[in-house]
Amino acid sequence: MSKFANGKINKLDAYVPGEQPKDKKYIKLNTNESPYPPSPLAVKYACDELESVRLYPDPDCTNLINAIAKTVNVSPKNVIVSNGSDEVLNFAFIAYADENNPAIFPDITYGFYKVFAGVNGVPFEEIALKDDFSIDINEYLDKNGVIFIANPNAPTGLEISLEDIELLLKSNPDRVVVIDEAYVDFGGKSAISLIDKYDNLLVTQTFSKSRSMAGARLGFGVASEKIIEDLNKVKYSTNPYNVNRVTAVMGIGALEDNKYFENNISSIIESREYTQNELKKLGFTCTNSKTNFVFAKSDKISGEELYLKLKENGILVRHFKKDRISNYVRVSIGSFEEMQAFIGAVRKILGE
Amino acid sequence: MSKFANGKINKLDAYVPGEQPKDKKYIKLNTNESPYPPSPLAVKYACDELESVRLYPDPDCTNLINAIAKTVNVSPKNVIVSNGSDEVLNFAFIAYADENNPAIFPDITYGFYKVFAGVNGVPFEEIALKDDFSIDINEYLDKNGVIFIANPNAPTGLEISLEDIELLLKSNPDRVVVIDEAYVDFGGKSAISLIDKYDNLLVTQTFSKSRSMAGARLGFGVASEKIIEDLNKVKYSTNPYNVNRVTAVMGIGALEDNKYFENNISSIIESREYTQNELKKLGFTCTNSKTNFVFAKSDKISGEELYLKLKENGILVRHFKKDRISNYVRVSIGSFEEMQAFIGAVRKILGE
Repeated sequence: MSKFANGKINKLDAYVPGEQPKDKKYIKLNTNESPYPPSPLAVKYACDELESVRLYPDPDCTNLINAIAKTVNVSPKNVIVSNGSDEVLNFAFIAYADENNPAIFPDITYGFYKVFAGVNGVPFEEIALKDDFSIDINEYLDKNGVIFIANPNAPTGLEISLEDIELLLKSNPDRVVVIDEAYVDFGGKSAISLIDKYDNLLVTQTFSKSRSMAGARLGFGVASEKIIEDLNKVKYSTNPYNVNRVTAVMGIGALEDNKYFENNISSIIESREYTQNELKKLGFTCTNSKTNFVFAKSDKISGEELYLKLKENGILVRHFKKDRISNYVRVSIGSFEEMQAFIGAVRKILGE
Repeated sequence: MSKFANGKINKLDAYVPGEQPKDKKYIKLNTNESPYPPSPLAVKYACDELESVRLYPDPDCTNLINAIAKTVNVSPKNVIVSNGSDEVLNFAFIAYADENNPAIFPDITYGFYKVFAGVNGVPFEEIALKDDFSIDINEYLDKNGVIFIANPNAPTGLEISLEDIELLLKSNPDRVVVIDEAYVDFGGKSAISLIDKYDNLLVTQTFSKSRSMAGARLGFGVASEKIIEDLNKVKYSTNPYNVNRVTAVMGIGALEDNKYFENNISSIIESREYTQNELKKLGFTCTNSKTNFVFAKSDKISGEELYLKLKENGILVRHFKKDRISNYVRVSIGSFEEMQAFIGAVRKILGE
């Protein structure tokens, strides 16, 4: 830190992305990317757009927003697009959290919520998951502040029901509830269907996982018109051109090519079920993941040791040095062949 | 606004980007874009990268940072890249401004500084330009806070000398000075040469104008290692993957293709001089612009009327409804043919 940094910056604990080692070629199952390339239509639209990059993007992202609105069946006025869904999550912190409205989220969840609280200088409260990693919604009902729930949750992979989300929304209509659906396409149920009924609901999704566009940075939020207005005010006060031209047209291509999307989802779910079954055969406990990763532990090897031995064997998974989950590894679902290689490596490491 | 928004958001006056009307095809001289497409090498690298978009970008942007460092002749440790230079400017607000350290900038300058102060909830002070629109550096020497100077300044097009910038840096070594060099490639002198001498200097530049990449969103900051550490802490706390994969490789291509860059700069400067000369022949007063725009006024027609009549004639320029400059129009430099068309339209409007 420099001597110039203000107090907020000195205290910051920045987010640590999954490692990207460059020493050798790994089977990369550590950052929940898709094993499949973006849709050929997205790639075609991108190529066609490159000459136009001399011009600023449309700050309103009209075409992309129309395409998203059509896909999730809402009005374009209910949609904002962002530079990854992280950005719209941060906009929600900026717009709704303050010293009297702490951010509230589970103790085990996406690590960035805590970081957003820090960088925005707002308080936060973590509510412990139950022993089985499920969320007890009753613990949230009387909390004041802004609630952030990843559904399905990460890294546990577990979902909560729309009934629970409705309970939360109804219990305090003056409180914003953010449902982060980064993984919803892999088997969860979206809360977008509730936005007409609850004006305090913001749902966020991303093109990073199910649409194979992690490297393009595209996310979006769906909410009541008033919430979208707030978030747009933040967008136009920080980064009006937050979605670049190439990413915008790739997003449109990815949405138009629905068949490609659905095929990829099916393959990933199939590989996930294969992976979980094989792990269980090897004595692992797995959560009931509705995502593109599995979260698993074994009594025969610690999470850290398994992570390290897999790395030695050329396979990267994610391990969190955090109480209650330090015995687990999170394994992103790659191609079927990659998951076979992963299971083979686990078998070898366990000596089975 | 929703009823949920906090006090900061309610007070926000968001930035208003230059208009992008879709009713007909305009000669677009209103947002300081390049008339030339991005370098063919940048386009080639982008096409080659599209399949890899399924993977997250390198958060450290190592290859791009190395290329920038080489180009501006500093160590990679002195460079941060950002989603447009707006983002690194905002990072500086987040890291250095607070209630005791207001942001300080000229009363006529890039409109976003004031917006960044608002969204970060920090105070700001505007210091009046002299009547000839030049900056009186003496007025800044004893100010406490964080100083933001666009050099060359927008929309005036005027530059201040590196000697003045050194005065500012020396007068208070405990104060960060940000020099925003969005337009420096068109004839200004960069302060990057001073970063080894002054650890309180941050210089920002962009690929939007001189490198024809406004639609790709790429900017960067150059400063002492400690300042870069601060800004990276903010980056990793808001948007670790702020530069997407396609933009990163386009940036590298644009830097490698230096000949293309230099040719474009020469053409734009030539067209700027042509435009200023022709305007002067028509009785206009022009500032001594070192940028890719001219800033001009005429006694024969108000700035607003000229803007409106040009728009009727299919030419978009920028007019600011702001005291002291409301008689001016800001005209981005397009291709030579576009500038001939612009001069022709002005001649027609003035009846000459």
